[in-house]
Amino acid sequence: MTVIVRAEVLQQVIDQMLTVVDEAIFRIGYDGLAVAAVDPANVGMVELEVEPGAFESVGDGMFPIGLNLQRLDDYIDGASGADPVTLSYQPETRSISIEHTNVEVEMAGIDPDAIRDEPDIPDLDHSVDFTVNAGVFRDSVENAELVSDHVEFEAAVDDKELVVSGNGDTDKIETVLGPDELPEANFDSDATSMYSLAYLVGGSKKGTKYKGLLKPLSADTDLQVEFSEEHPIQMHYEFADGFGHVTVLLAPRIQKR
Amino acid sequence: MTVIVRAEVLQQVIDQMLTVVDEAIFRIGYDGLAVAAVDPANVGMVELEVEPGAFESVGDGMFPIGLNLQRLDDYIDGASGADPVTLSYQPETRSISIEHTNVEVEMAGIDPDAIRDEPDIPDLDHSVDFTVNAGVFRDSVENAELVSDHVEFEAAVDDKELVVSGNGDTDKIETVLGPDELPEANFDSDATSMYSLAYLVGGSKKGTKYKGLLKPLSADTDLQVEFSEEHPIQMHYEFADGFGHVTVLLAPRIQKR
Amino acid sequence: MTVIVRAEVLQQVIDQMLTVVDEAIFRIGYDGLAVAAVDPANVGMVELEVEPGAFESVGDGMFPIGLNLQRLDDYIDGASGADPVTLSYQPETRSISIEHTNVEVEMAGIDPDAIRDEPDIPDLDHSVDFTVNAGVFRDSVENAELVSDHVEFEAAVDDKELVVSGNGDTDKIETVLGPDELPEANFDSDATSMYSLAYLVGGSKKGTKYKGLLKPLSADTDLQVEFSEEHPIQMHYEFADGFGHVTVLLAPRIQKR
Repeated sequence: MTVIVRAEVLQQVIDQMLTVVDEAIFRIGYDGLAVAAVDPANVGMVELEVEPGAFESVGDGMFPIGLNLQRLDDYIDGASGADPVTLSYQPETRSISIEHTNVEVEMAGIDPDAIRDEPDIPDLDHSVDFTVNAGVFRDSVENAELVSDHVEFEAAVDDKELVVSGNGDTDKIETVLGPDELPEANFDSDATSMYSLAYLVGGSKKGTKYKGLLKPLSADTDLQVEFSEEHPIQMHYEFADGFGHVTVLLAPRIQKR
Repeated sequence: MTVIVRAEVLQQVIDQMLTVVDEAIFRIGYDGLAVAAVDPANVGMVELEVEPGAFESVGDGMFPIGLNLQRLDDYIDGASGADPVTLSYQPETRSISIEHTNVEVEMAGIDPDAIRDEPDIPDLDHSVDFTVNAGVFRDSVENAELVSDHVEFEAAVDDKELVVSGNGDTDKIETVLGPDELPEANFDSDATSMYSLAYLVGGSKKGTKYKGLLKPLSADTDLQVEFSEEHPIQMHYEFADGFGHVTVLLAPRIQKR
Repeated sequence: MTVIVRAEVLQQVIDQMLTVVDEAIFRIGYDGLAVAAVDPANVGMVELEVEPGAFESVGDGMFPIGLNLQRLDDYIDGASGADPVTLSYQPETRSISIEHTNVEVEMAGIDPDAIRDEPDIPDLDHSVDFTVNAGVFRDSVENAELVSDHVEFEAAVDDKELVVSGNGDTDKIETVLGPDELPEANFDSDATSMYSLAYLVGGSKKGTKYKGLLKPLSADTDLQVEFSEEHPIQMHYEFADGFGHVTVLLAPRIQKR
């Protein structure tokens, strides 16, 4: 039970999963790779699939194994770009062997039963749906961080604009994304919704550090974003030449009135 | 009451003012921009003027408004180089609106009466006067930091040299600036004077962090420096194509004998 | 008693000595420069010689002087590459004067009697001896750091391979250096030996920071390495166009059985 994948593909998987959890159940085999997790506070969720097409080799079997993401990240640090990384499951020791360049690692697995169940991403119908460059979107969201812990998205049907704003005690900052920034946009109705900046772009809160769901995206990624009034925001992007699919879900912070 | 200025010009204003205070009164309008402040300990002073020629537009009125410099710095972070930044005074809310790129900020002003009065730079006649590359001068001063908290400037009429030195408990470091480094130099009499390195190049002292009066200067700036025996050192430089004028004044540290 | 040496040569001397001590006795003169030291815990040792050929001028005399390495490092910070640095001994003040660029420093010496005696590098006969690129070797050693505080070197005569491994509580990482990475290798017998990673690549332990014996080597240096089963590891390299010779010795950490 062995698969071979490019280092950069595995790196993206690790970076995105690290935004919600420290350990995750990897399901690796003939079907490629699937991993999903929700953060301990049930606020952010990531579901990630890599099709067999992204692998140099996928083998016949399928194995689920719990892995510590930070340690896995360390172990592939010496590989980069298209360097092949070989992952083999050792059922007798419940461990995984990782080989790349001239490095060989025996990494203990974590019993999947000891890791929280993978979430199901709910199937939601959103009133606002647009595509945006990930770098432009992240910059807009980070502007809000200058004055607040939350960001508000406000879609106006008439203006065909998305206003990304932060409201502080004394100051307010708005970034306006119009048709130039949103090549594809379907706004069925006006919608306003607010989300935690710590979850979107990172930060620390009550001693817990968040890495930010949007942080692992390279700036030139096409990001598809969907949300409705005071409902979760759902984001999708692809990587690994289209063989990798990521869905990110973030619960809204209900506004106090 | 609206003015438009290049981001890099406003940035230099903010960076230089931050070396002495956290909040300052900006006087903006038909005359350009004027701002001046002295640090809480009355040791360092900055006076800064930007003529209307540096503005794309200056409007008719003039408004004084107190602003927090660090917040203003954050708000123009997304603009750079020649990006136009529009500043508009909203008298009814005593706030300023800042627009650049696709960003719009409403920033609360501070009542000018709540900010310490702007200082007058005294008109002093100095016995030593020279022009030096700001990078070369700053390097000389930073050398003194290796052994001491103070730097001594010693101008010798006969040698036409400025010796910049630091005297530590056991070690001593000298940097000699001669005719090559001082293209214009008028030394009327020998003069020795000592200044705080924390104020010139930054540091922390009793919990307060100083950014260093010389830090915001780009290395290739022509700096005009004047001082006399145990008197303040006065430095001038220009920016914004010569439309911006900065005067910096630093009180001497009287030597113990 | 004055010598003149290129800044980059003196810099390498300082960087390598700083991996074991804060102060060292420099012997400078007609014979070039010699300095040697052992760390306070007697675990790591560095012996370093620079032949007169690396000096622009060496003078007639010879002077031993104790110097604080970090301060010396600071004082030559403004010089780089081939900039000449002049070192002159002032016997009357037991100090050294350092001149480079437009900087002049008077640096107090430390009485050599107040510094621990220089060690003698023991003459050992090793069963394993190979040459390796310093960057490749350091990377192998740093891999072990991901799982352990110690690195194990295992030379296998039959495979003509050196396995560099770290053994953690649950995980194990191995880097294999074969004929491609070891252009010259003499393995007389199988040998396994373990060393402290803090000494080899740095770290902190009980409040003491180690800089790592291998850290000052530029990645493309040819490093000659020798060791025997549970004996010290000895490493040699040259710098300053072959006029500089460094020997580094590190005691083994005896394995618990």
